[in-house]
Amino acid sequence: MASDVDRQMKLVGFMQASNVSVYAGSWLHPDSSPDFLTAGYYQHIGQVLEAGCFDMLFFDDRLAMPGIYGNSVAETVRSGARCVKLDVGLTLAMIAAVTRHIGLGATYSTTYSAPFHVARLFATLDHLSAGRAAWNVVTSVNDAEAQNFGLQSHLGHDERYDQADEFLEAVTGLWASWEDGAVLWDQANRVFADPTKVHELNYHGRFYDVRGPLTVPRGPQGRPVMIQAGSSGRGHQFAARWADAVFTNTAELDRAAANYRQQKAMAAALGRDPSQVVILPLVYLIVAETEEAARAEEQYLLDLVEPIASLVLLSEATNLDFAGFDIDDPIPDAFLDSATGMHGYVETVRQYMGDKAVTLRDLAGHRATLRQSPRFVGTPEQVADQMQEWFDAKACDGFVVAATSLPGTFETVTRLLVPELQRRGVFRTAYEGSTLRDHLGLSRA
Amino acid sequence: MASDVDRQMKLVGFMQASNVSVYAGSWLHPDSSPDFLTAGYYQHIGQVLEAGCFDMLFFDDRLAMPGIYGNSVAETVRSGARCVKLDVGLTLAMIAAVTRHIGLGATYSTTYSAPFHVARLFATLDHLSAGRAAWNVVTSVNDAEAQNFGLQSHLGHDERYDQADEFLEAVTGLWASWEDGAVLWDQANRVFADPTKVHELNYHGRFYDVRGPLTVPRGPQGRPVMIQAGSSGRGHQFAARWADAVFTNTAELDRAAANYRQQKAMAAALGRDPSQVVILPLVYLIVAETEEAARAEEQYLLDLVEPIASLVLLSEATNLDFAGFDIDDPIPDAFLDSATGMHGYVETVRQYMGDKAVTLRDLAGHRATLRQSPRFVGTPEQVADQMQEWFDAKACDGFVVAATSLPGTFETVTRLLVPELQRRGVFRTAYEGSTLRDHLGLSRA
Repeated sequence: MASDVDRQMKLVGFMQASNVSVYAGSWLHPDSSPDFLTAGYYQHIGQVLEAGCFDMLFFDDRLAMPGIYGNSVAETVRSGARCVKLDVGLTLAMIAAVTRHIGLGATYSTTYSAPFHVARLFATLDHLSAGRAAWNVVTSVNDAEAQNFGLQSHLGHDERYDQADEFLEAVTGLWASWEDGAVLWDQANRVFADPTKVHELNYHGRFYDVRGPLTVPRGPQGRPVMIQAGSSGRGHQFAARWADAVFTNTAELDRAAANYRQQKAMAAALGRDPSQVVILPLVYLIVAETEEAARAEEQYLLDLVEPIASLVLLSEATNLDFAGFDIDDPIPDAFLDSATGMHGYVETVRQYMGDKAVTLRDLAGHRATLRQSPRFVGTPEQVADQMQEWFDAKACDGFVVAATSLPGTFETVTRLLVPELQRRGVFRTAYEGSTLRDHLGLSRA
Repeated sequence: MASDVDRQMKLVGFMQASNVSVYAGSWLHPDSSPDFLTAGYYQHIGQVLEAGCFDMLFFDDRLAMPGIYGNSVAETVRSGARCVKLDVGLTLAMIAAVTRHIGLGATYSTTYSAPFHVARLFATLDHLSAGRAAWNVVTSVNDAEAQNFGLQSHLGHDERYDQADEFLEAVTGLWASWEDGAVLWDQANRVFADPTKVHELNYHGRFYDVRGPLTVPRGPQGRPVMIQAGSSGRGHQFAARWADAVFTNTAELDRAAANYRQQKAMAAALGRDPSQVVILPLVYLIVAETEEAARAEEQYLLDLVEPIASLVLLSEATNLDFAGFDIDDPIPDAFLDSATGMHGYVETVRQYMGDKAVTLRDLAGHRATLRQSPRFVGTPEQVADQMQEWFDAKACDGFVVAATSLPGTFETVTRLLVPELQRRGVFRTAYEGSTLRDHLGLSRA
């Protein structure tokens, strides 16, 4: 299978600063380490992914322990369903200190922080990592998060995006408040910086007022890479306007390719160069020396996660409390209509239900079996074939690789799969540039 | 001069994640480095202070560029008067990654962040640094900060402390939400953690509502060290209730000793062990091989800072815009009465004025000449004598060492002064324990 000579796949390592990966059963896997509260655990993973020439290591985040299911955290704690989540900025900085090339991204919510804080955080990370910072913009959705911040109710879905648009106008304005070359460090004339190149923002919106300037000079990347993952119509518009990289979550190749074309077209319609929007679907990779071993590993993983952990996370993602249903009850459509959580998850569940009566056990199994994302299983050659199929069909510009054990998955992918992709000429054998924008083929902002 | 055999001095290196130290002229000094936007700059300082067995490296912070003076940042930018301030958490993490012993503290405001965020940040730092985190609690006061966060006005002084009390009740509650030993990592029985040892907080106050639990298990120190520096009556009460360490700012030995006795007595009156409240005044140390060289350095420093940089910072500290006065105008008492900024600074200025008519040039000079803190100048022996005089008089338990150049001051102090203090037996020659609480003689919370 041939690829465009010049087109190179992008790879992102996806995880949480947590006791588990996005796959809630991961802590039960023998290739997972219990050292998830130490710096060395995260630094090792960063170094493994950098040895594998990954574009970026990325941390998802939530600002609460899952607590929607049964209005309690007890099952969350017992099953380990993402009950631990460390501060993502600090964790990235610890990794930045022991790596030189790999990009460093994190989720930060526009709902629970101020634009000035977020702008300063990622501008600082961009300096201290010498140009490797990325911010994944999320508009939080979860009652458990709201309860940790004393918020009684959420904005509606569209109003949340109105607020997020303002938030990004303020943040990008702050990032631009120091021009390049503003710092002079002219000791002889006692001029630290050129006052004509440092500007107040004086942003006044419906939701935010920010004077500025930022207290951080412009960073190595011009501005940090911005990521978006919203899957609603409004989310796509938001991404078309703002995102350098779009994380998607589509199990079928055809839908992913259609989404890819649509997202690039939306960016072009706003006057942006479509090549400057990198589209990356989440994927599970189960790679082993033999197909038999990979299939055995897949079956092991399918059996690993408990239904209760799945339901805890499904309740969190949809803001629906499934504890009121017996495990073998069908779930009424009207119940799902009341979901206020992430649009994409609810849609995925609806599609899975189709016309059938689906029980809670089915739903739990659906999530546990990793069906919400494409899953490529097999030898390095087989998995590389599947990745290239998506890549060559223009369903993506690369992949966001989810882990089923940590550090196990990333060690295996780096050891077995990356060399195969490199042999095929679709993935770098060394970093060509120094910043994350360089890796992703994005121009300096 | 003899000291109690068992009593050991505590030393804290005080700085900003900034282009300057607390001394705004510092960037003009030849021993200052222009690399203040790189990780290596901060990591070098951390390593220097750790080589000097310092208890802690501490970052002060503000969430705005000084912009009160003339309602503009132009003079701030030109003179370099703390116009750069990086995110302090990320900067500390970069240092944590290359040090093993030294404590790592940072200012975080109770006005511009949520309790859940601050609790998670410092709990994470405590884990990732293996027990070295400290939080300096401030209740922000500055119009320029408020304008960056879209806040129109401040709470009154006492109401700010009411809010801060609630904030700390919520944060310490979150830190206690996981009991020791809650994490089991029992793969065989699929029990990640013991649900009976992880508790919701359900804090409901006038200012904050926080459900909890925190998403971070209890840290190595039980809870991070808490620092307070308020100098008002209400600030002293707040410190007596909450602080493990109190940063003070008193130029005279007698006043410092009286304050020391009072602060310890206030803690005892609340049922706390006074030895568990460590009192540390800010001090400038100007040390050189000869007294003549130290005096020459002192004079050099007094000439280094420009009046305009002093006024920019004085306006910031007091929330008063001094730009309306000519440099040789007297400042009316009534004008100072309108100050809403930090209580201690206004008092210091008033004391300096006494009955005289004081001009803006006098005020600027006052601040520039470092008079707001004790300043010890001379050979290592002479400076050690002055430090021991304060220490033996029970005016302090050690010192917060301000820098006049960076990394210059800390390099000189570590090279010349620390060995003299060690020779006298009043300062450690190696770290005895592993956590910051160990260094400061504080029990695990």
